[in-house]
Amino acid sequence: MEQKGDLKFPVIAVNNADTKHFFDNRYGTGQSTIDGILRATNVLLAGKNFVVSGYGWCGRGIAMRARGMGANVIVTEISPLKALEAVMDGFSVLPLSDAAKIGDIFITATGNKNVLSEKHFKSMKDGAIMANAGHFNVEINIPALNKLAKKVRNVRGMVTEYTLKSGKKLYMLAEGRLVNLVAAEGHPPTVMDMSFANQTLCTQYIIKKGKELEPKVYDVPRDIDEMVARLKLASMNIRIDTLTAEQKKYIADWTAGT
Amino acid sequence: MEQKGDLKFPVIAVNNADTKHFFDNRYGTGQSTIDGILRATNVLLAGKNFVVSGYGWCGRGIAMRARGMGANVIVTEISPLKALEAVMDGFSVLPLSDAAKIGDIFITATGNKNVLSEKHFKSMKDGAIMANAGHFNVEINIPALNKLAKKVRNVRGMVTEYTLKSGKKLYMLAEGRLVNLVAAEGHPPTVMDMSFANQTLCTQYIIKKGKELEPKVYDVPRDIDEMVARLKLASMNIRIDTLTAEQKKYIADWTAGT
Amino acid sequence: MEQKGDLKFPVIAVNNADTKHFFDNRYGTGQSTIDGILRATNVLLAGKNFVVSGYGWCGRGIAMRARGMGANVIVTEISPLKALEAVMDGFSVLPLSDAAKIGDIFITATGNKNVLSEKHFKSMKDGAIMANAGHFNVEINIPALNKLAKKVRNVRGMVTEYTLKSGKKLYMLAEGRLVNLVAAEGHPPTVMDMSFANQTLCTQYIIKKGKELEPKVYDVPRDIDEMVARLKLASMNIRIDTLTAEQKKYIADWTAGT
Amino acid sequence: MEQKGDLKFPVIAVNNADTKHFFDNRYGTGQSTIDGILRATNVLLAGKNFVVSGYGWCGRGIAMRARGMGANVIVTEISPLKALEAVMDGFSVLPLSDAAKIGDIFITATGNKNVLSEKHFKSMKDGAIMANAGHFNVEINIPALNKLAKKVRNVRGMVTEYTLKSGKKLYMLAEGRLVNLVAAEGHPPTVMDMSFANQTLCTQYIIKKGKELEPKVYDVPRDIDEMVARLKLASMNIRIDTLTAEQKKYIADWTAGT
Repeated sequence: MEQKGDLKFPVIAVNNADTKHFFDNRYGTGQSTIDGILRATNVLLAGKNFVVSGYGWCGRGIAMRARGMGANVIVTEISPLKALEAVMDGFSVLPLSDAAKIGDIFITATGNKNVLSEKHFKSMKDGAIMANAGHFNVEINIPALNKLAKKVRNVRGMVTEYTLKSGKKLYMLAEGRLVNLVAAEGHPPTVMDMSFANQTLCTQYIIKKGKELEPKVYDVPRDIDEMVARLKLASMNIRIDTLTAEQKKYIADWTAGT
Repeated sequence: MEQKGDLKFPVIAVNNADTKHFFDNRYGTGQSTIDGILRATNVLLAGKNFVVSGYGWCGRGIAMRARGMGANVIVTEISPLKALEAVMDGFSVLPLSDAAKIGDIFITATGNKNVLSEKHFKSMKDGAIMANAGHFNVEINIPALNKLAKKVRNVRGMVTEYTLKSGKKLYMLAEGRLVNLVAAEGHPPTVMDMSFANQTLCTQYIIKKGKELEPKVYDVPRDIDEMVARLKLASMNIRIDTLTAEQKKYIADWTAGT
Repeated sequence: MEQKGDLKFPVIAVNNADTKHFFDNRYGTGQSTIDGILRATNVLLAGKNFVVSGYGWCGRGIAMRARGMGANVIVTEISPLKALEAVMDGFSVLPLSDAAKIGDIFITATGNKNVLSEKHFKSMKDGAIMANAGHFNVEINIPALNKLAKKVRNVRGMVTEYTLKSGKKLYMLAEGRLVNLVAAEGHPPTVMDMSFANQTLCTQYIIKKGKELEPKVYDVPRDIDEMVARLKLASMNIRIDTLTAEQKKYIADWTAGT
Repeated sequence: MEQKGDLKFPVIAVNNADTKHFFDNRYGTGQSTIDGILRATNVLLAGKNFVVSGYGWCGRGIAMRARGMGANVIVTEISPLKALEAVMDGFSVLPLSDAAKIGDIFITATGNKNVLSEKHFKSMKDGAIMANAGHFNVEINIPALNKLAKKVRNVRGMVTEYTLKSGKKLYMLAEGRLVNLVAAEGHPPTVMDMSFANQTLCTQYIIKKGKELEPKVYDVPRDIDEMVARLKLASMNIRIDTLTAEQKKYIADWTAGT
């Protein structure tokens, strides 16, 4: 909207705060997606081929936790940078069309549409499970799946079974909506608290300073982001270090240390 | 019973099969205990001090999965061998009376009674959560907790809040019964299948051979244990290697290779 | 320098390229620091209290790999944001003065000076090992250590033993210089290749475009960063996905998907 | 030998002590094998396909540490039980002939011969690295490799380059001998100390009791094993719990708790 000149007022992108996307998107979504899958299916994750599409903050949180539960995690990406990071983190990286053939569980976390689509459904194994953790219910192409199916029925609270014309059965969780919100309880409060604190403090900031700001998208002021982190640590009884006067001087002075 | 001469018939200790305790107790209990805690509380595990009492097969499954979810895991033990293994696996090992002061979540998996008791309740932090994953509801000394409490109330399906006379609040999950059975759905079928296969095959075995056996406790015959593993791998489409004739000879002959 | 107006020409901060700091600083320094410690000491890392000061890209690489080798990792920080991230990653976070009492091995990776200093040396355990992986040999206050020592001797290639007046012995690796460069071989070529590719391509870029640029510090152009990642993946035979036309349109259009 | 009646005197299998094979074979070999590979090659482990043949105590130590360094670990096995355990631990399990095609680094830890042989060499990728961590220099079939090679030369201290007739280059570390002993320094003293303690205490035991024992292979007496663990913990300042009188009684009495 900013690029197109459609923005009429200043906006603070709270989602980009370090205390938001580092925590809520990664640790929150990571845990709650696993939680959603378990509540929906009670499937054993250990030993499963667990395919995560998208290695953004949500995707890496999910990949990290799926591995932590003993799954063999496969990542698919469109960004070479993120793909390379996934490789270096020890995950298998494959094109989705290859991953489709071996995956037991598929999670989309891309922010895009039709990530899992007709050609993938056709090559999946009998019994494969799909869920979305990234966005609206467009990441998995449900209309295409419906077309391939000869029978669709609900087999367990959050699990829909699609019997394809070939006889193969595929399972969709939470109708392709956000599995962590629909099948579990969303992020735990102890991670959302930081997101809410950012929203409150940024609203306060924009009330005070809004008049002076142009209609652009701004980052969360660093002071606010740090204050949220500081309060959070204090609530957990965790103490950290502070720079000495000598260290403050050293770090600011580019003529030192060379 | 065998030692006391109380055993009247031969018994096969199915729980000791490798395809039972390596899998069901470790991977099954590991996942389902995490699942039970999440369903009961929706608490964020990342960054929590997570105390596991007992580093047997269940305990190590729980410790491994709690770490996999981002918790800082502390193990308590009475066996020096198991304690040392926990240390080498990178966990903190502490006496329970020390762990009691810093834990956010406590899980018992010892097979013994009164593991968490009055002195621990007294030194726990406000808000600490307790659950049992090992045995009957005797691992946590609930009568002692009731005596310390001035108020007991249910605050969420599987969560009982104990307000101590000091005003501190402690939370008990699933009334101290097996949290993975009560608050979640127990082990996933894909791990129980191996336990059931062992039970079936051992029953069959004892029907055939029972008359010839003395009234003792027997291990699961190795052939049965291996057959269960072989069938399980086949069901997952996983193929493994076989020894060549040359290798079979080599491995059996102690005069070779030295 | 830019802030003080001391910069006379445009600079591209190659160190900030994603294909540099995500990889070289994290995966390179992570592995080579472990390598340096092992070559210098042959100490078993499993079960050790391993203190990492600084949770920047280098520090988190070191922490991740130390945990991967079975150590119990403790992080110290001055930034609340980084401290909180370390907590959520499952590490213990302590003030350095507390960590000093329990650490077996200490690694500095802060970019600052006198991080480990007199008060820490005094409270360390007999036999504690120190090394620097972050910066020049100023992160550990060696003059202060010399003052406390009654005897200093080399006990093994890269290991200096300081016997304090109390009789306690502390060990310094590589004279406090970068332990991964001095005691091991620095980063593996397969991670440095990306840093060198960035340097070459940015030099080429600045030759072409330098005249048009102001004397400021610029980020590596995104195209160059992505090209480096793309070539690296190709060299590893790893293929990734590309957006469909439909997906490109979807992701660019803020009116869709709401 | 016992089975063939060739044993002339009682033997205590010190290698089977819990404080030996749980620690020395797993944590010792795990670390020192990684150490040997790094000293020999300085190769980046993150993102590499790292094939471990054999998932015994050594193999699982190596697999665990290779994953800890960021590698994508593939396990090969002949035992269905061990293969299944590797799967549940989140590793890929493949027949060696499939793993041969994708591996970057191959480690044998089987105790058998010709594990890596002609057919594997032929399907390996250009640049593949091989080492042995399990046994004598027979696990990798070096005579077969020599037959395939048109040129053999030493390219770096512990690295031999085999140029096959096809032009492909394969690399052998430490001439196929134990890479952790030859290219690194073997197990760290802090893990060998337990093995030596077992050997000393068992020798003492057999001097005292040897006359009463038949010429069989005996396990290390449990008391000795536990004493070694207890002393080791004490040397690390780690305290553990002890059973209360009530708990001792409970655990011994099969009539309780049911």
